[in-house]
This record gives sequence, C-alpha cells and structure tokens, in this order.
Amino acid sequence: MSIELETGLPSVRQIQTLIREEREVELKLITNDLITGKMRWQDQHCICVVDHYDQQTVIWRSAIVYMKPKL
Amino acid sequence: MSIELETGLPSVRQIQTLIREEREVELKLITNDLITGKMRWQDQHCICVVDHYDQQTVIWRSAIVYMKPKL
Amino acid sequence: MSIELETGLPSVRQIQTLIREEREVELKLITNDLITGKMRWQDQHCICVVDHYDQQTVIWRSAIVYMKPKL
Amino acid sequence: MSIELETGLPSVRQIQTLIREEREVELKLITNDLITGKMRWQDQHCICVVDHYDQQTVIWRSAIVYMKPKL
Amino acid sequence: MSIELETGLPSVRQIQTLIREEREVELKLITNDLITGKMRWQDQHCICVVDHYDQQTVIWRSAIVYMKPKL
Amino acid sequence: MSIELETGLPSVRQIQTLIREEREVELKLITNDLITGKMRWQDQHCICVVDHYDQQTVIWRSAIVYMKPKL
Repeated sequence: MSIELETGLPSVRQIQTLIREEREVELKLITNDLITGKMRWQDQHCICVVDHYDQQTVIWRSAIVYMKPKL
Repeated sequence: MSIELETGLPSVRQIQTLIREEREVELKLITNDLITGKMRWQDQHCICVVDHYDQQTVIWRSAIVYMKPKL
Repeated sequence: MSIELETGLPSVRQIQTLIREEREVELKLITNDLITGKMRWQDQHCICVVDHYDQQTVIWRSAIVYMKPKL
Repeated sequence: MSIELETGLPSVRQIQTLIREEREVELKLITNDLITGKMRWQDQHCICVVDHYDQQTVIWRSAIVYMKPKL
Repeated sequence: MSIELETGLPSVRQIQTLIREEREVELKLITNDLITGKMRWQDQHCICVVDHYDQQTVIWRSAIVYMKPKL
Repeated sequence: MSIELETGLPSVRQIQTLIREEREVELKLITNDLITGKMRWQDQHCICVVDHYDQQTVIWRSAIVYMKPKL
C-alpha cells in the first residue's frame, strides 16, 4: 500500500470533504460501538474522530462498518 | 489496489446495474445490521446507500456479508 | 488481484463444477446465517446463490465460513 | 497470490502431512463451530474436510481459528 | 509489506509520539477487551503495550478497533 | 507474501526469542478462547503452541488478538 491516499476515490474524497466542512458523523464499529464526532484526519490505516470534549479516538479502518454524515 | 474498479467482474457489474436502475437492495452487515435503500456509488473500499429519508450510509466492503436485490 | 479467477485452484474448480451441475449447497456465514440454494456465478469478491423462489443473494467471500454440497 | 502453495512453510507442510496420513483433525472456526474429520485437500483459499458420513465441508482459511491434530 | 514502517502516515507518527512521550492509552479490541497502558513499540503486525505491573501485551493490529490517548 | 519471515520485525523477533527460551505464553483469540502453552514454531500464516499434555494447536495469525508472555 502506497503512502499516498487514493484521493480519486469517492469514499476518500467524501471523507476529505466532511473533514474540511467539520460535519458531524456517526461511525458504527464491528464491536457495535457507535462513535460520534468530527473527523480530523484520515490515512490508509485509520480515521481520527474528535468528540465534544476534544477527546480523540483513532479508529482502525478494518473495524469500521459504516459512516453516516449527520443531516 | 488500483484506482480503477474492475468493471469486468460480475459482482462489480451487477452493482453498477443496480445503481443505474435505482433498484432497492438489502445489505446484511457483519454486525447483523440490515441496511435497505438504493445504492448510489461504489468504489474499492465502500458502497454508498441512500434511504427513503435521503440519509446516506457509506458502508465498508469489508463489513458486508451479502446483498439482496429486492424482487 | 487480477481479473481472471485462478481456475487451477481446487476450491475455484469445485465451485465451477457445482455451478455447472446445479447442485444445491449450504453456505455458512460469519453472522451464523445459513444460505441454501444453487450457486450461479463466482468472481474474486463474491459468490451468487439463488434460492427456490429465484431470489438472488450475492455473498461476499470474506464473509463465508464454509460451504457444504448437499448429498 | 500465486497459484502455487508455499510448500516450504511449516503450516502448509504440516497440513500436507496430515492429509497424507489421513489423520483426524479438529478445526475451530470464527463462528465457534468445531469441524472434525480428515482433511482431503488444501489450496490458498480453502481446506476441505470429510467426516465419517463422507460429507465434504470446504472451509475458508479466513474463517479458521485453530487446528488440532487428534492425538 | 516492506519491513520499514510508513513513518509518513499520521497514524504511525501519532503512535510514535505517544510511545516517546510515554502517554497512557486505551486500546479497544474486537473481542471487546479494553487494554490500558503505555505503548512500547509498534511494527507492521503488532503494537506492544505495558501495564502498571510491567506485564507486556503484544496486540495484533488486525484486532484493534480504536485507540484513545488518555487526557 | 514471501516465504521468508521478516525476522527484522520486533514482533517476529520477540516470538522467536520466546520459542527459543521455551517461555509459556497466553494467546487470546477472536473467539475469546485463551490458549496457554509454549510456542514451537511460527510462519507467515500460523503459530504452533504445545500444551502440558503435548497437544499441538496450530493457530491462524488472523485469529490472534494478543499474546502475553507469562511473568
């Protein structure tokens, strides 16, 4: 896997947009945990989410089931 | 993994057809969640499903168990 | 992953034979679901199974635990 | 993944030996199923186990947790 | 996968920083286990965490769901 | 994946050391099974553990959550 994110992919681009717009998202994980917050960065392995108390959670992509942008 | 989807594969083609025909599908996930809606796009990592309330769910392929087109 | 299925592999060949012979199979999935039907096609990502009511289920290979041809 | 099994690996070699010697094994799967029988063949994706009633089970490697040769 | 860690990636760099600063972290695993301690090293396959009793736990990356640095 | 183990990696080296020193380890698996014993060999796919009764368990790496050397 190269060090550059494939920014041409719709899923990568959508996450980049949600980061830039500081949109709140909901991430469902394979343990059934539901993480809510704003995404701060993504790389090939992880996505970082920050909650209202500024607590960072670095989530492994392999553990993500789905992402819902809040309406 | 290249940035181009392997559009020659039956599974990729069938999803493309279902997107174009705006067919409703059911997606079973490894958390046992069942997502129903119309698929809007796919890439190597994810498939995006939109429900009746226009809520987007971006689903990781690694979390999909099966897909059933609604009859 | 190349677009061609590795038809030299025993597992790929056995599935091809079961498709051609329209044998009924049982597929156990990681969610503990049990899918029964005839396989219609396979590619690198998925296997398609059709049941008695002609309902298609496109199953992700990553979600398959085992396959049993019906005796 | 090449079509040839890496027969130099201890795990591949041990399975080959168990197949040749028709030793009974126990396979624990991620669904907690326990499959008992004699292994008949292996390839990169699957291992085939046959039970006392000659029922074949083709098990996906990705679903195997451990294998115990019966003492 | 090359033997060198991709130190340009945000997730790899953040873990390196947390190791250097001896920050306490919480690691949630796919079995729902929660491991708390200081990370000591990382490589492509594993992350090593040491607890208050100096007990090492070598965690497989494939089993990590998320990591939270303690505030 | 090449047939040679990446012996430069800390995780691979630590397992080699534990094998050589015949240290007892605890392996937590994704099914929540806990395997205790001495590791005998490792390769890219599996790690072999032997218990007090000399029963071998060949564990798939993909099913390992963590390893704890006994203190």
